[in-house]
Amino acid sequence: MAKELTTKEENYSQWYNDLVSKAALAENSAVRGCMVIKPYGYAIWEKMQAALDQMFKDTGHENAYFPLFIPKSFFSKEASHVEGFAKECAVVTHYRLKNDPNGNGIIVDPEAKLEEELIIRPTSETIIWSTYKNWVQSYRDLPILVNQWANVVRWEMRTRMFLRTAEFLWQEGHTAHETREEALAETEKMINVYADFVENYMAVPVIKGAKTEHERFAGALETYSIEALMQDGKALQSGTSHFLGQNFAKAFEVQFTSREGKLEYVWATSWGVSTRLIGALIMAHSDNNGLVLPPKLAPIQVVIVPIYKNLEQLDQISETVKVLVDRLKRRGIRVKYDDRDSQRPGWKFAEYEMKGVPVRLAIGPRDLENGTIEIARRDTLEKKSVQMEGIDQVIEDLMTEIQDNIFQKALKFREENTTSVDTYEEFKERLATKPGFILAHWDGTMETEAIIKEETKATIRCIPFDGVEEAGKCILTGKPSSRRVLFALSY
Amino acid sequence: MAKELTTKEENYSQWYNDLVSKAALAENSAVRGCMVIKPYGYAIWEKMQAALDQMFKDTGHENAYFPLFIPKSFFSKEASHVEGFAKECAVVTHYRLKNDPNGNGIIVDPEAKLEEELIIRPTSETIIWSTYKNWVQSYRDLPILVNQWANVVRWEMRTRMFLRTAEFLWQEGHTAHETREEALAETEKMINVYADFVENYMAVPVIKGAKTEHERFAGALETYSIEALMQDGKALQSGTSHFLGQNFAKAFEVQFTSREGKLEYVWATSWGVSTRLIGALIMAHSDNNGLVLPPKLAPIQVVIVPIYKNLEQLDQISETVKVLVDRLKRRGIRVKYDDRDSQRPGWKFAEYEMKGVPVRLAIGPRDLENGTIEIARRDTLEKKSVQMEGIDQVIEDLMTEIQDNIFQKALKFREENTTSVDTYEEFKERLATKPGFILAHWDGTMETEAIIKEETKATIRCIPFDGVEEAGKCILTGKPSSRRVLFALSY
Repeated sequence: MAKELTTKEENYSQWYNDLVSKAALAENSAVRGCMVIKPYGYAIWEKMQAALDQMFKDTGHENAYFPLFIPKSFFSKEASHVEGFAKECAVVTHYRLKNDPNGNGIIVDPEAKLEEELIIRPTSETIIWSTYKNWVQSYRDLPILVNQWANVVRWEMRTRMFLRTAEFLWQEGHTAHETREEALAETEKMINVYADFVENYMAVPVIKGAKTEHERFAGALETYSIEALMQDGKALQSGTSHFLGQNFAKAFEVQFTSREGKLEYVWATSWGVSTRLIGALIMAHSDNNGLVLPPKLAPIQVVIVPIYKNLEQLDQISETVKVLVDRLKRRGIRVKYDDRDSQRPGWKFAEYEMKGVPVRLAIGPRDLENGTIEIARRDTLEKKSVQMEGIDQVIEDLMTEIQDNIFQKALKFREENTTSVDTYEEFKERLATKPGFILAHWDGTMETEAIIKEETKATIRCIPFDGVEEAGKCILTGKPSSRRVLFALSY
Repeated sequence: MAKELTTKEENYSQWYNDLVSKAALAENSAVRGCMVIKPYGYAIWEKMQAALDQMFKDTGHENAYFPLFIPKSFFSKEASHVEGFAKECAVVTHYRLKNDPNGNGIIVDPEAKLEEELIIRPTSETIIWSTYKNWVQSYRDLPILVNQWANVVRWEMRTRMFLRTAEFLWQEGHTAHETREEALAETEKMINVYADFVENYMAVPVIKGAKTEHERFAGALETYSIEALMQDGKALQSGTSHFLGQNFAKAFEVQFTSREGKLEYVWATSWGVSTRLIGALIMAHSDNNGLVLPPKLAPIQVVIVPIYKNLEQLDQISETVKVLVDRLKRRGIRVKYDDRDSQRPGWKFAEYEMKGVPVRLAIGPRDLENGTIEIARRDTLEKKSVQMEGIDQVIEDLMTEIQDNIFQKALKFREENTTSVDTYEEFKERLATKPGFILAHWDGTMETEAIIKEETKATIRCIPFDGVEEAGKCILTGKPSSRRVLFALSY
């Protein structure tokens, strides 16, 4: 089986596509821009969902479900929202098909035209706030802390599996609060939850910060994001949390009687991460042999491959492995024993390397004699023979070690690829030769931001929360600036 | 707060709607026929999903995700499927909106018309089998055992929350097999999984059987269903499993090289249950005080309500309750302590009764003195004072007892409302006076089935698997029949 990938160095973009395909994560579907998430890719998404869902619940949120369809008129209600979103949407205009009277299959029944067109949700602020109107009368009804796991559709012209697809899966939190302060605190809390998840589960370090006005979500007063650096030096926005002020409450007339007995508009936030995170996971860690998965999100954490010459040997090996599998499972480790006789060990090794299984164990007749087993780590590709005695503890420790090592490696990469530049020449040269995160001074205007983007394709990823006050001059205009912002090319 | 329900006896249908609304399970949305599943309703769905998902995985299935959209032409490929499904569908014809040049909000951009219309999936056989074509070459690629959790849309004209909505949530399993026998075994395995879930988690007894040709799924050679009896004597089809033969494989040219080296078409099954099960859960057990939930699916299994006159008393109670909550949680019991000072105990009692919480504990100052606590069961409405000592074991046992009691009650109801009739007069009288399950002889023809349906509205729910051979005469035509089939009015 030809499992060879195009190398990253040769063609990064082709390497990514090859990997998505050969690791059986996803494939393009018959519908333009929509992907099929295959079982192995979906299993990673399930692990992500489980961890995030628990984090949302631990921070007081509940799940609910709102309609897929949004009446067209809802989009016009929040002016800046419609500007940002209403353009590239899937529009439902009819509700019935019929047999073609000329016998050519089926056609759309022209008589079944909807009075008002329905838009497939690109995001659900409008339909949700039209619902919250009925849920809120008094401050006692607040806060509303609701999340939804759903599919959304944005009719993207240039699509890329996981990173940008017409339909994608995501979660969207939509909360309603009494005060501006409480809503702002929620916005910040959730960007911290995302950072926690991406760093501690995905093992991808992120920079937290605020988006510039230009890069904010349509309808938001403040957008916080987490930005991760991919191995090709491009940034990937991995999660956003929006402070929506009272914009949606005003658009949908969601008012409440305050503790002081006054009628006030509700304060809103929304926040989301999507299957795009799988793209980030792939691009942050993988190598030319395939996927590298952090143990916490790996559908299979340990694979065991028997090495044998005949079925009698296989039986002996299987007997020992069975005990080991039980011991590992008891420690909560997700283990698979691949005893298929239809494939050779070498094929299996390549297969699980491609799929990023963190630890591979191989065991043959000599191991049985010696009481040993071979351990191979996916992250470092190191192999060594170890004693079977106490192996379950060794593997449990290894899970933590690999998780940590993958994170440290990504962190080191980011540090090596983050530079501060002080002139526009340096800035452009850096982007042309060795892209990465660039910290530079900016004069704070949308005009400057736009010129830099047009001339270099680099955008301001965020104004980092942990940035320090530092007097400087805008790299483009030379105007004074009080802190550096984070620039990068991006996905 | 007016939490009173219309009684079942007064108006069953209004009782159902009241209950869905007052237990905060769901509500109608701004989009015709689409509901909003509220947090409490969704929490029940999450419990159902978790149990079913585990059962699917235990039987070897994996999850995946396929596109929301289906190209219109796909429907025409399987002739009987298009007849059954293509009619009432949401059709996407455009992919862009634009600002109205006349300044009236936004309009559909006429230039952004799709070349081929896309249908929102009413079920996914066609898009999935078009994908499987690329997954299957050899018998080694089989079986494919895939499930999808998704939303689907069927443009129903008369909708009812949970029971029949334009958009609903479900799971759909789609499997591919080498042989007819294996696919038939899978079809049967999954109807058994559903029956197991509905009986052991939902505490609703079901009758398993085969659908008549007329009631089969569009494109299926055999449809198995589980049928449950609601408290108004109507049947509710609660899950179906279809043997699709080679129909979809032929429509999408999915062939494989068999063990004998021959090119053969793949054998298919599909099976699904939906949020409709929540409707079944409500209607099978609930009473005029509200929802009655089986402990295994209750988002809150035990609620604790403090009875106090002043905050000092509340503090004392809370101290004791805190210990109890920890003890219950350690036993895996989902417990909530409602110490809100804004509502009185009586209000809380009514609230949790409405929401079907299986066990309510109430504790006041005298209880503290005596080392007692009051236990109220939702299923029997019994209350009694018991010793705090050992209460966690008592409650754990009670969970099992309530789960079992709810099932036994539903089973008794079904037995009392299942009759065998031998004449068409009896049959009609039974339907008019005391509907329920009716076992009667039928001559096996679609004509007879259609006449009975037209004249009485009753349909053949299934040909029960556990029916016994028995010579008899069709209630309509008097023609010979070898076994009784299950008739009922239905949802």
